[in-house]
Amino acid sequence: MNRLTPTAVTDTKMADNETEANSISGERSAAKLEKLLTVAAELMAVQGYDQTSVRDVARETGFSLAGMYYYFQSKEDLLYQIQYRTFDSLLQEQEGISRGEGSAEERLRLFVQNHLSFYTTHFNEMKVCTFELHSLKDERYTTIESLRRKNFKIAMEIVREIVEGSGRPDDGGEVVRHYTLFIFGMLNWIFMWFDPERDAPLEKLSDELVQLALHGLRDGSSRGA
Amino acid sequence: MNRLTPTAVTDTKMADNETEANSISGERSAAKLEKLLTVAAELMAVQGYDQTSVRDVARETGFSLAGMYYYFQSKEDLLYQIQYRTFDSLLQEQEGISRGEGSAEERLRLFVQNHLSFYTTHFNEMKVCTFELHSLKDERYTTIESLRRKNFKIAMEIVREIVEGSGRPDDGGEVVRHYTLFIFGMLNWIFMWFDPERDAPLEKLSDELVQLALHGLRDGSSRGA
Repeated sequence: MNRLTPTAVTDTKMADNETEANSISGERSAAKLEKLLTVAAELMAVQGYDQTSVRDVARETGFSLAGMYYYFQSKEDLLYQIQYRTFDSLLQEQEGISRGEGSAEERLRLFVQNHLSFYTTHFNEMKVCTFELHSLKDERYTTIESLRRKNFKIAMEIVREIVEGSGRPDDGGEVVRHYTLFIFGMLNWIFMWFDPERDAPLEKLSDELVQLALHGLRDGSSRGA
Repeated sequence: MNRLTPTAVTDTKMADNETEANSISGERSAAKLEKLLTVAAELMAVQGYDQTSVRDVARETGFSLAGMYYYFQSKEDLLYQIQYRTFDSLLQEQEGISRGEGSAEERLRLFVQNHLSFYTTHFNEMKVCTFELHSLKDERYTTIESLRRKNFKIAMEIVREIVEGSGRPDDGGEVVRHYTLFIFGMLNWIFMWFDPERDAPLEKLSDELVQLALHGLRDGSSRGA
């Protein structure tokens, strides 16, 4: 399921590896880290962060405890690496959308589609990101919170453009902030009920969410965005 | 903060108490149970169910461990009692709304207002209900799940009336179910961001949520419901 590429995260570890042998060894390390993060995300998504021990991750991956600590400092660091990679990757795509052409309605549609398609490719990671921010402390918390804030601002600017374009009187931005939070509520709550057998494909769900957000329940037509 | 009345829950314990002395003792028991449930809900809302021990509840309330087990069988039973009382009480109010007069739009507005006003009076309990259903097992899970399902159906019938009234083609009800889930997403996600200093009063938030749900972002007018 997980299609995160393992390149970016190995930059620091690979900085001094200049020979081919070291490069192959670096690739192996990257693949191992990838496996650790994927398995840890799955365990944390299913049983919760608090209920998941580093020992569980060792058992599921076949790593020794000592071997794992080459890749992360602590269970919290493991959670941090999962969240950092996921949000950093999502954010890059959403920033691309925010700089793109097209009406604000079209960019909202792309933003929602992209967020939901991330569920398809990184379901466990997104669940962990959505519910386990507060398990991070201090600098790790601040770093992830700042990625989330950037992502939120991208959505809020799109919502602002739509609301202002509709001629609603300005109330200092609070209604735009609340509307954006409502949209994230619709998106994030999906983890609580999504059943692939019944509710897929996510593309259809994405269209329905955008239709509701743009036009509301009372709009009978399908005007599109 | 908690204004749950302690009457209903003592029915079984008071069934055989017929003298005045026993009645006073029953009231004391009810007040003690009330205190236990209130404190436990607060601990679980702040630090999570898994992180809260029966010992924590004893320490915060001044009860002995043995004394507490007169009121509940286990930590899971304590969680169950919190959820049962909260949902049962919310459900009675929402059923009243569903039977009431007024247009479907007006009933949606009342449903949302009532759900959010429950946050004001039972904030910790509602947070525990929202995030800790899956900590219940077997019959306790089934009972609470059934209360939640009833509450969901009330909202879904209102949404169906609005969507059908708007002339949208019928797709077998899936879109109505999804729209209802989106509305619960907006409602329940509020726990993740609500800041009383910045976002109060909930009445305003309730109006904004209903406005978005009925008319969407693109509606510049305030047509009301």
